[in-house]
Amino acid sequence: MMAGRAPPLALTMGEPAGIGPEIALKTWLARDTQDLPPFVFLGDPALLAALAKRHRWRAPLAVVEDMAAGAAAFAEALPVLPLPLAVPPEHARPDARNAATVIAAIERGVALVRAGAARGLVTNPIHKAALYGASFTWPGHTEFLGHLDGLAEAPVMMLACPDLRVVPVTIHMSLRRALDTLSTAEILRQTRVVHAALIRDFGIARPYLAVAGLNPHAGEDGAMGSEEASLIRPAVAALAAEGLAVAGPLPPDTMFAAHVRTTYDAAICMYHDQALIPIKTLDFAGGTNITLGLSFIRTSPDHGTAFDIAGTGTADPSSLIAALRQAAAMAEHRAAA
Amino acid sequence: MMAGRAPPLALTMGEPAGIGPEIALKTWLARDTQDLPPFVFLGDPALLAALAKRHRWRAPLAVVEDMAAGAAAFAEALPVLPLPLAVPPEHARPDARNAATVIAAIERGVALVRAGAARGLVTNPIHKAALYGASFTWPGHTEFLGHLDGLAEAPVMMLACPDLRVVPVTIHMSLRRALDTLSTAEILRQTRVVHAALIRDFGIARPYLAVAGLNPHAGEDGAMGSEEASLIRPAVAALAAEGLAVAGPLPPDTMFAAHVRTTYDAAICMYHDQALIPIKTLDFAGGTNITLGLSFIRTSPDHGTAFDIAGTGTADPSSLIAALRQAAAMAEHRAAA
Repeated sequence: MMAGRAPPLALTMGEPAGIGPEIALKTWLARDTQDLPPFVFLGDPALLAALAKRHRWRAPLAVVEDMAAGAAAFAEALPVLPLPLAVPPEHARPDARNAATVIAAIERGVALVRAGAARGLVTNPIHKAALYGASFTWPGHTEFLGHLDGLAEAPVMMLACPDLRVVPVTIHMSLRRALDTLSTAEILRQTRVVHAALIRDFGIARPYLAVAGLNPHAGEDGAMGSEEASLIRPAVAALAAEGLAVAGPLPPDTMFAAHVRTTYDAAICMYHDQALIPIKTLDFAGGTNITLGLSFIRTSPDHGTAFDIAGTGTADPSSLIAALRQAAAMAEHRAAA
Repeated sequence: MMAGRAPPLALTMGEPAGIGPEIALKTWLARDTQDLPPFVFLGDPALLAALAKRHRWRAPLAVVEDMAAGAAAFAEALPVLPLPLAVPPEHARPDARNAATVIAAIERGVALVRAGAARGLVTNPIHKAALYGASFTWPGHTEFLGHLDGLAEAPVMMLACPDLRVVPVTIHMSLRRALDTLSTAEILRQTRVVHAALIRDFGIARPYLAVAGLNPHAGEDGAMGSEEASLIRPAVAALAAEGLAVAGPLPPDTMFAAHVRTTYDAAICMYHDQALIPIKTLDFAGGTNITLGLSFIRTSPDHGTAFDIAGTGTADPSSLIAALRQAAAMAEHRAAA
C-alpha cells in the first residue's frame, strides 16, 4: 500500500448479464463531479471493455494486481482486479458457466476487506437463481457474506437515504409469516447491532432509536392488536434498561413524517414494507443497502440486476454512487473511532 | 339562496374541547390568502367568540339562520349556524353534557348537504369516547354518516395529498385481523366505489387504479405469500373484465416512489399502514380524508382533536383548509358532470 493513501473500496462485478458492470463504468466516469472515493472493480476487464466500446464511453481500464495499484490508477483509469468470466455474458441472460466467477468476486472482496487491503466492500446485484447451480446455497448475498465472515448470527440489513435510516427486523417472508416470526429477542438483537454500528460507523455518539409498532396507531392500547404489549414494549423496556436512547412502539403511519423522522437516527421496523415503503417513497434512486453486524463495512445499491434494461445503456448509477460514498464515510468514521 | 351564488360548505364544530373551533377560526382568518371556498360553521357561536377573544384574533361572527345568509356574510364575518353547547367546554376535557350538540351538528350538516343547501360537508374531528354516553353508537364518524345517509354498505375512506390518493381496504383493526378480513369481494366493492368517485367527483374521465400487493415484492410469484394469487389477482382480473383501467397486485414498496405514483389516480391498499405510511411520509400537514360512497361530498382534516395542544393557539389549520378546498373542487366537478 502506498504511504498516506487510504485503501480503496472493493466493488464486486455482480451478475455480468445485469446492469452492475454498466453502472460501475458510469460511476467511474462521474468521478470528478461526484466526489467519489476510489474503488477497484473485481471482475472481468473484457466485459467492461466491451461495454465501454459498445456505448462509446471513454473509460480506460487499468488491470491491476493489487488494491494499492488500483488506488494509484483510479484518477486516470478504472482499476480492475481481473477475474475472467468463462463465457462472454449476454444481456439479461445469466449463464451458469459464469457463476463461479460471480461467486469468486464476492469471496475475493471479502478476503481483501478482511485483510485491510480494501476499506469497505460494495457489491453489485447478483441473480441468485443463476448461482444455485454452483457452490452458492444461500438465501441471498447478505447471508453468504455472513458465512464468509464467520458469523454465528445473521447480519442486520439497514436501508438509508439522506433523510432516513430504516431496519426491517423481519425481511423476505410473507406478511403472515412476519407476524408469526417477530420476537422480542430478535428486536433486541438487531437493535443492539444497529446501536453499535451507529456509534462506530456513523459517528453518532449517542444514537436515538425509534422502534415502530406493528399495528395501526401502534395498537391504540390494545384496541387494535396485542403485539405492541406482548413483543415490542418488552424489547423497548429492556433496551432502555441497558441505557440505549430508544422510543416506541411508535405509530407506524406518523413516525416517518418529516417532523418525526428528523428526531431519530434509525427506525427499527417490524416488517419489510413498513421499512421499505417510507424510504422508497422518499428516495427511490439514491437509497443504499448497508449490512451491519459484519466485521467489515459493506454497502450495496438498493436495486437488483434490472434485466429489463440491461444492455440499453440507460441504467441509473445513483444508488451505486450513494453506496460507494456511504461505505467511504463509514470507513472514515470507523478509522477515526 | 341568492341567485348565482353556489351554496357554501357546511363545517361541523367537532369536539369543542379539541382544536376544531380554533382551526375553523384560523381558516376563516386566512380566507384571502388561501382562495377559500365559503363555509358556514355549525356549532356554538359563544365558543368561537371566547376563543377569538382569548387569542385576540379579529374574527367577527355572523350568526345566521340559513346557509344562503352564511354565504352572503362570509367575506366580512365567520358565519355560524347556531347550535349552543350545554356547558362552556374546557380545553382537552370533553364533557358528556355537550355530546348531544356535537352529534346535532353532524346531523344538521348531513341534512343541509342532502337538501342541497350545502354543497359539501366538512367535519372537524370528534372524540368518540365522549359521545358514547349519548345516542352515538358508531365505530366512528364515517359509519355514522353512512347511517344518516341511509347506506346499506360502509362508505369508503380515501386519503389524499397533492401527490397521491390512497384507499385502505381494511382500516382500524390489527394487522393480523386485516390479513384474516381481506377479501376479493371487499377489494372489488371498494375499487368500484373509488372508480365511480374519481369520474364524478374528481373529473377524471378514465381513472387509472393501482392495486397493491399484500406481501413483500407482491409475494414474488408465491415465494413470499399466497394472498396475491388467492385474493388480489382475482379482484384485479374481475375489475379489468368490467373495463376498469387497473394494474396490480403491485410491489408495495416501489408503488409509492415518485416515478410510479404519478402514473395512477389512486392506490387501492390492503391495510391501514400500507396506505397511511406513504401519504404521511409525503405530506403530514396537508393531507385530507375523503369519504366516498355517500350520496353527498364529505371531507375532513387528516388529524384528530389534538388535545395535547388544544387551547394553546398553535394548531395548524393546513389540513382543514385542504379539506375545504378539496370538498369545493369535488362539488364543482360533480356540478359540471
